[in-house]
Amino acid sequence: MGFITFTEQKLSTFTYTVFKKIGCSDEHATLATAVLIRSDLRGIDSHGVARLSGYVRLWEKNRINADPNIKIVHETPTTATVDGDGGLGLIVAPFAMKIAIEKAELYGSGWVSVKNSNHFGIAGYHALMAVEKDMIGISMTNASPLVAPTYANERLLGTNPMCYAFPAGKYPPVIVDMATAAAANGKLEIAQRANKSIPDGWVQDQNGENSNNPNELKTGGSLLPLGSDKDHGSHKGYGLGATVDILSAVLSGANYGPWVPPFVAFLEPPTDPVGEGIGHFLGAMRVDGFRPITDFKNHLDHWIERFKNAKTVDPNKKVIIPGEPEHAFEQERKVTGIPIIDVVVNDLNELAEKLGIERLN
Amino acid sequence: MGFITFTEQKLSTFTYTVFKKIGCSDEHATLATAVLIRSDLRGIDSHGVARLSGYVRLWEKNRINADPNIKIVHETPTTATVDGDGGLGLIVAPFAMKIAIEKAELYGSGWVSVKNSNHFGIAGYHALMAVEKDMIGISMTNASPLVAPTYANERLLGTNPMCYAFPAGKYPPVIVDMATAAAANGKLEIAQRANKSIPDGWVQDQNGENSNNPNELKTGGSLLPLGSDKDHGSHKGYGLGATVDILSAVLSGANYGPWVPPFVAFLEPPTDPVGEGIGHFLGAMRVDGFRPITDFKNHLDHWIERFKNAKTVDPNKKVIIPGEPEHAFEQERKVTGIPIIDVVVNDLNELAEKLGIERLN
Repeated sequence: MGFITFTEQKLSTFTYTVFKKIGCSDEHATLATAVLIRSDLRGIDSHGVARLSGYVRLWEKNRINADPNIKIVHETPTTATVDGDGGLGLIVAPFAMKIAIEKAELYGSGWVSVKNSNHFGIAGYHALMAVEKDMIGISMTNASPLVAPTYANERLLGTNPMCYAFPAGKYPPVIVDMATAAAANGKLEIAQRANKSIPDGWVQDQNGENSNNPNELKTGGSLLPLGSDKDHGSHKGYGLGATVDILSAVLSGANYGPWVPPFVAFLEPPTDPVGEGIGHFLGAMRVDGFRPITDFKNHLDHWIERFKNAKTVDPNKKVIIPGEPEHAFEQERKVTGIPIIDVVVNDLNELAEKLGIERLN
Repeated sequence: MGFITFTEQKLSTFTYTVFKKIGCSDEHATLATAVLIRSDLRGIDSHGVARLSGYVRLWEKNRINADPNIKIVHETPTTATVDGDGGLGLIVAPFAMKIAIEKAELYGSGWVSVKNSNHFGIAGYHALMAVEKDMIGISMTNASPLVAPTYANERLLGTNPMCYAFPAGKYPPVIVDMATAAAANGKLEIAQRANKSIPDGWVQDQNGENSNNPNELKTGGSLLPLGSDKDHGSHKGYGLGATVDILSAVLSGANYGPWVPPFVAFLEPPTDPVGEGIGHFLGAMRVDGFRPITDFKNHLDHWIERFKNAKTVDPNKKVIIPGEPEHAFEQERKVTGIPIIDVVVNDLNELAEKLGIERLN
């Protein structure tokens, strides 16, 4: 297992070429590329170019529309529902967030629920669009079912991430961007590759018993909600996952719960859909709708300083400000490049050959 | 240890009389009573009349203003900041939620951040105000510091609850109302009374080590965030608690983090406040700002049915819909009355004697 490091530019050009090749417009290919590459820049390797061939396979099966007519289907001054027309979530979500921001500029806040979309990449990208306008950004998405609610022995919810992002002054934005499961699937994949067992409280097996096997999802097991078990608040993780599902899909008319279509081409979507595609929820609130932006930023800087300098259990560890590690990755990788694991490099080269474009390396 | 059961009417009259006696107006006393009693009706005994003498003790110390001039200090069409003038949170939060609802009626959504308030009772009460108008209700509050963020060995956040409430059709509303700690303080108090140990993952001792002692908070220990430890996602519980703190206090100008004043009269507030009082955040979104209310309710009913009838690990347990147990309590206790534990009955009788009003029994 090794890594090959590419410049942001090199990876971006490759990714753009792939999206163009499947029929995206210049504008859409540029945007989808920006979302994917930002994930790799920010160290969230599971949501970047590692997913590119998966998007193409879904497109090959006509489950992603490369040239969508994304539109508002219902609105008030500060709310809207967007129909993504089966497009890439990487494009649909920024479209929706742009509407939320425009509404916030006019009325103080804007909220958009989205149906008929697909995987939207990292939640943080969309929330940060609002932060760049001195707004608070919120983004969520539902996802195909992997998580068993408390007491259940079946998968009814996705890892349904929620993200809240806040503009700070001299520090990077505070970005809380989290799956509502105890551990997202990516952590299981890391254990699989390393042939290691996983901690108690991440998954249950097909009988609902705790398991330490990272392959448990392949044999009927489920992820557990944040909190892991009832004693430790798994009903809260379940409640958060439910909140994301309702705001993203019951509110928009997308598929919810166990009906959310899978992100992978080798699994077929349910034959009895209850809505259209997958759902997102995006929001923007002007900070200066509440108080002057400078006052807010000064206080958030002060908040950050207090937490960063907290007394810690281990004097060698500091309290981490949400979003700080990803910001540090982004600063570093913009300069030193983005390391891509060899299996992903091979996958991208195979993709290039299939599409008849230049290999990545 | 025993219980005495009172009618809703009897408890309400007593509570109203107490609030009148400390100088609340008729309107404020009625509202504060409604919030407290609804907590007892809904089975959340820790947040009902059990807290009444505590509010009075804070008032005696001039830390609650019984006759506040609550007002909007900043606003846009859909956002506002409210100054609670040191009033009871039980009154200030509904005032703020009313503004959020009025803005939502006009513009689709409304969002209010609150400073200079106090403990607001159950988050669900305020969120349900929106649900009664066929809106989605959101309520949060920060609280005095009891929780250590991941890696920290000091208390920097309260148990900072967040609540999301959704109107259903033939079923009770879905209400996710949760502290962002692994276990709230009330669970420790139950273990203290029963002289029992507590599970791993709820608290750490003054050295930052896991502890099973429910009295650990009295000797420098801390509650742990939802997720309990890093491996199980405590950084997510910390992130949620931080989100509540920022929306409630950094956005409004209330005290945040370790500066949030304690809810108990025997602990003094910090002498170096960074804001005014404690903070809340309340929001309302019209469902029909996204899709017709009937469509939403039909789909939410369907969602509820699917989750209620999920396959479970233990065939004798069902998946619980968030808010369902509290709704069942409310239906039952409205008929059979509200059981109050004898220590609380004694406390209320002592309060009555101190104030020169009729005893509860």
